Amino acid sequence: MELSITEKKEKGTRPEDAKLAFGTTFTDHMFNMDYSIDKGWHNPRIEPFANLVLSPATMMLHYGQGIFEGLKAYKTETGEIRLYRPRDNFKRLNKSAKGLCIPTIDIDFIMESLKTLLRLEKNWIPETPGTSLYIRPTVIATDPYLGVRASHTYRFFIILSPVGAYYSAGFNPVNIWISKDHVRAVRGGIGEFKTPGNYAASLFASEQAKKEGYAQVLWLDGIERKYIEEVGAMNIFFCINDEVVTPKLNGSILPGITRDSVLTLAKRWGMKVSERKISIDELIKAHGDGTLKEAFGSGTAAVISPVGEMRYGDKVLTIADGKTGPVAMKLNKAITDIQYGKAEDTEAWIEKV
Amino acid sequence: MELSITEKKEKGTRPEDAKLAFGTTFTDHMFNMDYSIDKGWHNPRIEPFANLVLSPATMMLHYGQGIFEGLKAYKTETGEIRLYRPRDNFKRLNKSAKGLCIPTIDIDFIMESLKTLLRLEKNWIPETPGTSLYIRPTVIATDPYLGVRASHTYRFFIILSPVGAYYSAGFNPVNIWISKDHVRAVRGGIGEFKTPGNYAASLFASEQAKKEGYAQVLWLDGIERKYIEEVGAMNIFFCINDEVVTPKLNGSILPGITRDSVLTLAKRWGMKVSERKISIDELIKAHGDGTLKEAFGSGTAAVISPVGEMRYGDKVLTIADGKTGPVAMKLNKAITDIQYGKAEDTEAWIEKV
Repeated sequence: MELSITEKKEKGTRPEDAKLAFGTTFTDHMFNMDYSIDKGWHNPRIEPFANLVLSPATMMLHYGQGIFEGLKAYKTETGEIRLYRPRDNFKRLNKSAKGLCIPTIDIDFIMESLKTLLRLEKNWIPETPGTSLYIRPTVIATDPYLGVRASHTYRFFIILSPVGAYYSAGFNPVNIWISKDHVRAVRGGIGEFKTPGNYAASLFASEQAKKEGYAQVLWLDGIERKYIEEVGAMNIFFCINDEVVTPKLNGSILPGITRDSVLTLAKRWGMKVSERKISIDELIKAHGDGTLKEAFGSGTAAVISPVGEMRYGDKVLTIADGKTGPVAMKLNKAITDIQYGKAEDTEAWIEKV
Repeated sequence: MELSITEKKEKGTRPEDAKLAFGTTFTDHMFNMDYSIDKGWHNPRIEPFANLVLSPATMMLHYGQGIFEGLKAYKTETGEIRLYRPRDNFKRLNKSAKGLCIPTIDIDFIMESLKTLLRLEKNWIPETPGTSLYIRPTVIATDPYLGVRASHTYRFFIILSPVGAYYSAGFNPVNIWISKDHVRAVRGGIGEFKTPGNYAASLFASEQAKKEGYAQVLWLDGIERKYIEEVGAMNIFFCINDEVVTPKLNGSILPGITRDSVLTLAKRWGMKVSERKISIDELIKAHGDGTLKEAFGSGTAAVISPVGEMRYGDKVLTIADGKTGPVAMKLNKAITDIQYGKAEDTEAWIEKV
């Protein structure tokens, strides 16, 4: 396949770094590629960012057959553009594709196309520490057909959005609300895939949590409603005594790439690291006897997001006095230093553009 | 709100009734209405059927915040246009709306708008027995924003598609495949709402079933993986001894309107009717001792869909010798006779256009 490039005549202007929000501004160009059964993936092209023109019968709008990824490009102090574990994102996209009956993509080809797009959009990558260019690869089912089956046609696109520092007011802990009534996903379902339906399933409890003054929802498992699964848009870690522990991937938890980075670094540092079942009762007990030292989320958006408070029914668990703990701090610095080229890339996670 | 109407200049032609498929051909016009936080639902309009123009960042494409309904308009032998329990569809749409954090709609207003649309499209409603005009009301989240939250803007649209008789080759039983490995929904999730994510979650097992030669998947509950929930796009009924039984609505099953019609009519006829838990073990036992007399699905597409065979792992259960049983036959005739005006509308289910 040959990538075609159509450049936009009049380039837009990137907002000031200080005014960047998340996911509202998009760059001048996007990558598009189509799939049909007879041609496979075809017509890969970089072209001006433009609206999609879709039949109201488009299958994605009715049956949710779609997948996406989220990753970032970082600009170092020397102007170098770096991607963080991008092939792991596209590997996960292909796993999601299989789970949703969507044709997989050629990772090498997409990596080259993405790099070409990023070179074209290099002026859209902000430079202030903590800022980055968010990358959203997406696949949607495009058959204009109301029967329920896997679509025969798809659109793959990548859009780019310059984003500000996640913690504009400093690295502050968030409070999270443990849902007793709602479930995000269950084993045997689609919880381990990055597909729109999982986010739709999270909305009701998330809006409830917001009304109660909590930033995100911590989900329990759908079967026994007692084991910790994940937080809104992040995986979750706890430091109990000297153990760094996170729920084991069980089919209903998203296999986070930052989650894997945390596990890798903590092991490398000689910490005791476990992936296992963690019950809400264990957390309450550990909080009670003072052995629950830290809690933090991991994800692309915030890297590490310390948790200062968790609420479960009437119980409010304050963690690390509502402050950021040393493990969260160390992990966040280590990962962001690798991303922005301030530390050696010991794990070969960086791909230069 | 005042409904505006823009008529299409050059009308299209309805395909011959014999050539109608499901959900591939659409009529000349559609209904559109927009929502914003400051204006609420506004700008209701009937206009020529047209593609949607959506930012690639449209929330529906990323986070699946959408809902829909499916109902039909029937033309009687005297040319009368009839809707079957349409207000129940819009009530369910509003329940789905609440579950997905979408603003509800005014049912009276939408009913009037739909009737206006149907009068305009009356030549699109096929007349051959068994044919109808399928109606798809849909709401999608339209904010061009990549953060995860409930959208602040929505599009509501209704599109219409003339559809052929479901059983073009006669009222033939289907075979269904009971999934051991995959789960459609779980209590606490979104299974009881008509939202795209549920259909996305059904695709993998449905494609597996097709490869094995089965038409649809019968889902078991996500917790114990032993209780019957529903079939692909239908609710499920069994006749065990003299009992007509269907799974009780438990939060993960779609509350079907045809399901309710079956329960109502069977009770009216003095049959023993139960909504309760039904385990796969009970079905296997009833099949073994000859008390499992019939199985059939209920839904808008096929009304009643007799099941001739069920497969669960290595076990193949043939039901009613693979033929259509008397209860399925009687229910199908009763409901379709009401829909097409061949029998008295004893339950006040019909709304004339």
